[in-house]
Amino acid sequence: MPVPPSPAISARTAAVRGSAIRDLLTLTARPDVISLAGGLPAADLMPRERIARAAAEALTRPDAVQYGETAGLARLREVVAAHETGRGTGGARGPVRPSDVVVTSGSQQALDLVARAVLDPGDTVVIEDPGYVGALQVFQAAGAALAPVGLDEGGMRVDELAARLAAGLRPRLVHTVSSFHNPRGVTLTAERRRALAALAERYGFLVVEDDPYGLLAFDGAAPEPLAAHSARVVRLGSASKVLAPALRVGWLVGPPEVTAAVELLRQGADLCGSSLTQAIAADLLGDGPWFAEHLGTLRRAGAARAGAFTAAVAELLPGVRCSEPTGGMFCWLEFPTGPGGQSDTGADAVPDTAAALPRALEAGVGFVPGAAFAVGTPLPAAARCCFASHPEGVLREAVRRLSTVLPGRPS
Amino acid sequence: MPVPPSPAISARTAAVRGSAIRDLLTLTARPDVISLAGGLPAADLMPRERIARAAAEALTRPDAVQYGETAGLARLREVVAAHETGRGTGGARGPVRPSDVVVTSGSQQALDLVARAVLDPGDTVVIEDPGYVGALQVFQAAGAALAPVGLDEGGMRVDELAARLAAGLRPRLVHTVSSFHNPRGVTLTAERRRALAALAERYGFLVVEDDPYGLLAFDGAAPEPLAAHSARVVRLGSASKVLAPALRVGWLVGPPEVTAAVELLRQGADLCGSSLTQAIAADLLGDGPWFAEHLGTLRRAGAARAGAFTAAVAELLPGVRCSEPTGGMFCWLEFPTGPGGQSDTGADAVPDTAAALPRALEAGVGFVPGAAFAVGTPLPAAARCCFASHPEGVLREAVRRLSTVLPGRPS
Repeated sequence: MPVPPSPAISARTAAVRGSAIRDLLTLTARPDVISLAGGLPAADLMPRERIARAAAEALTRPDAVQYGETAGLARLREVVAAHETGRGTGGARGPVRPSDVVVTSGSQQALDLVARAVLDPGDTVVIEDPGYVGALQVFQAAGAALAPVGLDEGGMRVDELAARLAAGLRPRLVHTVSSFHNPRGVTLTAERRRALAALAERYGFLVVEDDPYGLLAFDGAAPEPLAAHSARVVRLGSASKVLAPALRVGWLVGPPEVTAAVELLRQGADLCGSSLTQAIAADLLGDGPWFAEHLGTLRRAGAARAGAFTAAVAELLPGVRCSEPTGGMFCWLEFPTGPGGQSDTGADAVPDTAAALPRALEAGVGFVPGAAFAVGTPLPAAARCCFASHPEGVLREAVRRLSTVLPGRPS
Repeated sequence: MPVPPSPAISARTAAVRGSAIRDLLTLTARPDVISLAGGLPAADLMPRERIARAAAEALTRPDAVQYGETAGLARLREVVAAHETGRGTGGARGPVRPSDVVVTSGSQQALDLVARAVLDPGDTVVIEDPGYVGALQVFQAAGAALAPVGLDEGGMRVDELAARLAAGLRPRLVHTVSSFHNPRGVTLTAERRRALAALAERYGFLVVEDDPYGLLAFDGAAPEPLAAHSARVVRLGSASKVLAPALRVGWLVGPPEVTAAVELLRQGADLCGSSLTQAIAADLLGDGPWFAEHLGTLRRAGAARAGAFTAAVAELLPGVRCSEPTGGMFCWLEFPTGPGGQSDTGADAVPDTAAALPRALEAGVGFVPGAAFAVGTPLPAAARCCFASHPEGVLREAVRRLSTVLPGRPS
């Protein structure tokens, strides 16, 4: 009798690429390393005392420790619906209702469940290139055929997508990190938002608008949701970047077929979220004056940190192109190539940020090489740096350390 | 150009059966209904004050609100490893190491991720019949071919499984709720545990030992884990029934290939669990004397509630067979059929608990009809009742209300 070897792993799991970023987090956790690698919101700005008060208050009630409804705590769904209505998510269709909202374990779970709800193996999915690694993993696990589309300073190249659709591309789903893109830092323009929504209507695909960063607009003007322009948009939001990741509270707002399928799949995925952390999130997001003041603090700190980081790059990394952040958490660096570009040999060369990373860690600074985000186009000369996690002085020191390893244009 | 209709749902999602139980929870949530339907641990016995103290203490540290490691908080993995070692999970292979443990969002997420990690569509999975609905959903979503195996008072009919294996059945995975079964209430005997482990070794399948209830043995002697007898067992544990569901803390202990694949898939599924609730769970599970006393309280209350429930059934529902609980949360009732069996017409008939449920809710009592757990064999005359959620007097009143609708043998 043929006996299979010890527990084999499924073929579809073998197709999933590990997150180089999460592997890196282990390396960059050394106390002597200033890490710009993780997409970690500023722990020093998270409202721990306010969370502790909300926890103590919630724990006076038995329902805060019991199983909760799969779609989320009723009060949190109300608060999120009001919040999304205020953002303009409902567009001309009217206010977002609590029943349009499903609360998930961070927006990552919303992404995974939407992919499982909508995609059959072999379906085509359009993703941004470079793109969010967590989305890449989800779509690989779903067995999707990936169709990468590039980005520029105005976000996803919707013109490129339109041309490929005209040439016959038929995606089931288009994924975009519409505001303060991870990893590129850019924001989809208002014009492109309308154009992408129109393409969804014309070609019948679903847009997944992944928006964990929109509220972190430095000028306080969160970009208008794509969902304002079409009911074919599933919008993903998150409390991780505006309250705290440890609440594991995200949500999706979408058409009834999608929210119903997501709710069904979530029964099997993990039954329900935490009644306790959802009660905390409802308390804090529902406390309008407090939340507005807290967001103001985050925005001012983010602007100051981004400003300090880009100023240090301009001064200490001459010739390095740096995205100009207007919100969110990330800067995208492109090191100079060709004549005058730095290389180990001094000859013309493409700098290789992945190869330089071990030396950078030796020098006490961590970042994520562009290659980690590459879908179709290799990005050896790029790096993603998170400016959110550290105060200004630390960021400047990080750039100084980086300049000793990847000096930009040789002086 | 053909335009597909509004967001369609994937074929594999359409194959997933909704949980009748969770749908019922909505109905039974009416305040005038005593619900025996949900598998809800006793909210009045959950240690809310101890949780509040642990939360306040954890929130003095910034890492309690930040993203955590995908495999779980290091301290919690240590505590769980020590706990599982004490249960005997490592068997002759030696102590369970923290690196053998992955913390998940309840044991339901562990089940889902193990299924996704190990199964390819079309793989055969053995499940118990009647079986845990959450497992059925997971394996349906994974596209598995289900092979149901029956249960008796000694748990899964391992002799029946052995015969089918000898006849050519080749499962990739065998799922069992080994102790205080949901819904049947029975426990796999020690002899069958050894036999099932031996079959796993002989035929090369993976056993998933789903054990959320083992610690709730009324006599304090938690059954020895199946995992003690074979390294081909993935063991799932949970804090939901011994601390509180709202912590969303479960775990798996398994071979390195499985834990590594689960960790990889979890990056895409929801990145990580809550650093806050994991810190709380580590605090409480790691406080040995407190946890032992708390478990004692749960066991005594469980025994008293089970005793009150079965005594009321014996008195008020004559002729109804009732499982004899020795732990866990569930009683399984079988209403009499054939001559003397109750029916609406007074004629010989099979009682139909599903048909009777609306009348039961009218009478102020909820339960789950056996049909909700049926995989291959219909179970119209059975019902699952959870005795854990209510004190003794309320349970007796629930049985009295039930007797007005499903009277057992007519008097």
